[in-house]
Amino acid sequence: MLRTHNCGELRIGDKDKKVTLCGWVQKVRDKGGMIWIDLRDRYGITQLIMEEGKSDAAVIESARKLGREFVLLAEGTVIERLAKNNKILTGDIEIKVSKIEILNSAKVPPFIIEDETDGGDDLRMKYRYLDLRRNTVRQNLELRYRVGIETRKYLDGLNFIDVETPVLIKSTPEGARDFIVPSRINPGEFYALPQSPQTFKQLLMVSGFDRYYQIVKCFRDEDLRADRQPEFTQIDCEMSFITQEDILNTFEGLIRHLFKVVKGVEIGTLSRMTFADAMKYYGNDKPDTRFEMKFVELDELVKGKGFNVFDAAELVVGIAARGAAAYTRKEVDELTEFVKRPQIGAKGLVYVRVNEDGSVKSSVDKFYSEDELKKWAEKMNAQKGDLILILAGEAKQTRGALSELRLEMGKRLGLRDKNKYSCLWVVDFPLVEYNEEEKRWFAMHHPFTSPKPEDIHLLKTDPGKIRANAYDMVINGVEVGGGSIRIHNRDVQEQMFKTLGFTEEEARAQFGFLMEAFEFGAPPHGGIAFGFDRLCALFGGADSIRDFIAFPKNNAGRDVMIDSPSHIEQKQLDELNIAVKKK
Amino acid sequence: MLRTHNCGELRIGDKDKKVTLCGWVQKVRDKGGMIWIDLRDRYGITQLIMEEGKSDAAVIESARKLGREFVLLAEGTVIERLAKNNKILTGDIEIKVSKIEILNSAKVPPFIIEDETDGGDDLRMKYRYLDLRRNTVRQNLELRYRVGIETRKYLDGLNFIDVETPVLIKSTPEGARDFIVPSRINPGEFYALPQSPQTFKQLLMVSGFDRYYQIVKCFRDEDLRADRQPEFTQIDCEMSFITQEDILNTFEGLIRHLFKVVKGVEIGTLSRMTFADAMKYYGNDKPDTRFEMKFVELDELVKGKGFNVFDAAELVVGIAARGAAAYTRKEVDELTEFVKRPQIGAKGLVYVRVNEDGSVKSSVDKFYSEDELKKWAEKMNAQKGDLILILAGEAKQTRGALSELRLEMGKRLGLRDKNKYSCLWVVDFPLVEYNEEEKRWFAMHHPFTSPKPEDIHLLKTDPGKIRANAYDMVINGVEVGGGSIRIHNRDVQEQMFKTLGFTEEEARAQFGFLMEAFEFGAPPHGGIAFGFDRLCALFGGADSIRDFIAFPKNNAGRDVMIDSPSHIEQKQLDELNIAVKKK
Repeated sequence: MLRTHNCGELRIGDKDKKVTLCGWVQKVRDKGGMIWIDLRDRYGITQLIMEEGKSDAAVIESARKLGREFVLLAEGTVIERLAKNNKILTGDIEIKVSKIEILNSAKVPPFIIEDETDGGDDLRMKYRYLDLRRNTVRQNLELRYRVGIETRKYLDGLNFIDVETPVLIKSTPEGARDFIVPSRINPGEFYALPQSPQTFKQLLMVSGFDRYYQIVKCFRDEDLRADRQPEFTQIDCEMSFITQEDILNTFEGLIRHLFKVVKGVEIGTLSRMTFADAMKYYGNDKPDTRFEMKFVELDELVKGKGFNVFDAAELVVGIAARGAAAYTRKEVDELTEFVKRPQIGAKGLVYVRVNEDGSVKSSVDKFYSEDELKKWAEKMNAQKGDLILILAGEAKQTRGALSELRLEMGKRLGLRDKNKYSCLWVVDFPLVEYNEEEKRWFAMHHPFTSPKPEDIHLLKTDPGKIRANAYDMVINGVEVGGGSIRIHNRDVQEQMFKTLGFTEEEARAQFGFLMEAFEFGAPPHGGIAFGFDRLCALFGGADSIRDFIAFPKNNAGRDVMIDSPSHIEQKQLDELNIAVKKK
Repeated sequence: MLRTHNCGELRIGDKDKKVTLCGWVQKVRDKGGMIWIDLRDRYGITQLIMEEGKSDAAVIESARKLGREFVLLAEGTVIERLAKNNKILTGDIEIKVSKIEILNSAKVPPFIIEDETDGGDDLRMKYRYLDLRRNTVRQNLELRYRVGIETRKYLDGLNFIDVETPVLIKSTPEGARDFIVPSRINPGEFYALPQSPQTFKQLLMVSGFDRYYQIVKCFRDEDLRADRQPEFTQIDCEMSFITQEDILNTFEGLIRHLFKVVKGVEIGTLSRMTFADAMKYYGNDKPDTRFEMKFVELDELVKGKGFNVFDAAELVVGIAARGAAAYTRKEVDELTEFVKRPQIGAKGLVYVRVNEDGSVKSSVDKFYSEDELKKWAEKMNAQKGDLILILAGEAKQTRGALSELRLEMGKRLGLRDKNKYSCLWVVDFPLVEYNEEEKRWFAMHHPFTSPKPEDIHLLKTDPGKIRANAYDMVINGVEVGGGSIRIHNRDVQEQMFKTLGFTEEEARAQFGFLMEAFEFGAPPHGGIAFGFDRLCALFGGADSIRDFIAFPKNNAGRDVMIDSPSHIEQKQLDELNIAVKKK
């Protein structure tokens, strides 16, 4: 090694040692007679010191040539600092430099390489290799590494084994769009990149692998919304000879382990909520349960009093925002604007203030007496000082809008604390949902999810009523993982494809290998996949996954650093037997 | 869990326990009154026993319906076996069954699921999920898992961190052919799948990550020879602030660790050999050093005696095969045929027998006296009983042919023992080699490899003479890993691209980001990549990597199980803005 120590490890106990350090110049302070350099590497910062007259003239001369981000090799002796710095672990010592070698020079970086940077997103992404020098970004990736290795430790301890599944697989039209890869050796044919290793992990169960995991790249060619990446990473797991209960316990254990070792937080036992309750009380299948503010349905109390908006509504439902009765007119107007935004789509907002003096005041006083309003408050368990917010309309849409409003109120009231964690399982999802546009049933999770045995008879007659053995893990309103018990019986799988509108030929062409596998002794099995990027962002207390990925793509799917995707040579296209279409 | 224990863990100490097991029927023996079932899972085999009259009639009836590979749940009591089976760990006990539940039935498998199977390659690949049930194949993947997790442990202990690099990157024409991925959002543009994360790991060094590793899928669209896969896995590593010596020591340590924990073998310190010596003594840059049989050049002794074949040859070189003097005429003819095969391409083979009685006999007695032949034998250090084999011709081609003959003789003489390991470093590779067809220099490793500092001045004048700071790890004649110290200076990198025939524009378009990165403080760095599939096959004592990959592709790049690659829908092509060319 060019160095004897890294920049984070020397302590007062190393005093008088001759050492060699390597690293980047974080800062140079030249006070006439004295020069200090903060030398930085991944492990920390160590201060170098030189003194005119005392240090070698060549050393002083070298030091005066240095700029930010120069790469140095410095030899010297560990001495005790006069002015200690208790903010860094090496703060008791400094290095009295006897020799400096410039290993590489550096142009002035396009943005400041510190925790708070002046680099905007575009610049940071173009020079991602410089952005990654910043402590904050590097620490995110170190956290990601730790989550990964602790995941492996936990699963290894339970006899799970990592089996690599192929990346060049087969395109299947069900679900999101595939990325495809032309085959040169098989002209006119294409591989697809996996959206998940789903069928392969199921086949591993058929093979008797019993417990499988993989931390694996997956791919979806979707229109990129904020914070979606075309390639993303899953913690992908599958087990045989289990019930849903076993899966929930095993992977609740994983998350408990990760919170403990990575965050030092004990999260205890996860609560469970049915999909039906999540929709009823939170209007959302991934409720943020860091705060209560549950939905209360008011139809019985509010209808038939001449207020047409409520009378005509399929659903009237409200929340009580603790301590928000003092909201100004302007603040309430803001909330009204919030729910009327097109992406939320409510027609209006009814409020009821439950004042500190016990009086009640609403935006619909014309239609309801104070006594009536008090009954609403009572049903909603609203206290003095609360603000009741009510939406009305078509049931599904209204729940969705109220869910957004609830989250907004949670944010405004400071109830969505990044350092608090509320984890739960949402269970008993519907197996399928009807798509009005395409006029057919779609799998809520995927076509391999097993119906609950007691609901299986409804497959042919009333699929919408079937509950699935499916479950999502939700933390702070984010779905971090989801999975299901799988179908392991050929007939049920065939019936499922039929329900989803596959012809027999389509089912056979796309998933014939899986259905055939089920005939050769498939064990009962099930599994789960966690969104690894998202989980890491959650542990890091960030909203965006982007800074938990070393080299992310932007919202147009571009890597602006390497400038990809890009045009390729005609020769490559010819070899692949494809052509780019003329506009 | 449906089971209380797996099929590999019950022992005599568990006697009288009530247990539930799940697994596959390996075998049923029905001897009238008694029925035994071997129940199998990943962990082992446990024997179930039922007795007519004593066991429940329903249990007997169920047992008689069973076929091979049925999936069972069996409840019962652990009892001591009368006839112990010391071949399996559960051989002291059996389960007296009180209840059998058939969890799934199984059709008769298309081949026998035992260590020795009657399934040919095609059938095994089509039903890979059944093939994976065979102990031999499953154990290969378990070994692979162990190699992977021990690699992580070793590297984690040395502060290496796993950073995921992107899979959707940019096509670069240098090197092997890329797989490409059309971008839907950026019409007419393409991603490429990485042949290795080379540039990204170098950028991570520029970022200060200091020590990086990844066990990562890589892709090469090459014409598939036997035992090549379009997707393969690398153990990919990079370090900063190091010399070549540090890399060799660190990764020799990794291999030593793996041999110790995975194979229980101490391999000691690796020897080192220069590329020049490897070519001189073995005619091969990945010599199999499990046996000696070094090349000896005979030009000085053999030329000018009237034997035109030798006189006209650029090189006359031989090996002494220990104890092969007794080879029959037929055997020697076989060797002659062997070297004359087109893929080896020698014109003929000269032999000299050093008989046990001290006499010497050769195929060129007409040209050389016995005394002269004895001098050859002396120079070659051939002993009584040895067979000297000599080839002559153009130097490079002759070395290559003799290398093949040496390996063949090693095989015939039983010197290539799969349970013996000979590991070494081959170092000091040439930086570039001239390609006569394309009339230009090609990088021997890749364009990022650093010349030895003392040879760097030859870049413009005599590139063929430059030695690189590059190294391969060779085990038993297989290159299991290779790497280099990298260029970290923009000027040198530019000069290197120029030497390889890149125009400035091409260099900038393809690798501008890397050269720019070198200007912002790039540390000295270097690394290595191991072929993970190959390394696992080596540990498993197999020649082929295929059974160390869960779902491999065949030699036409096809996954015959899922039938991929395949045709895709016109709609997909349209969305991607590409068309398949008509023939």
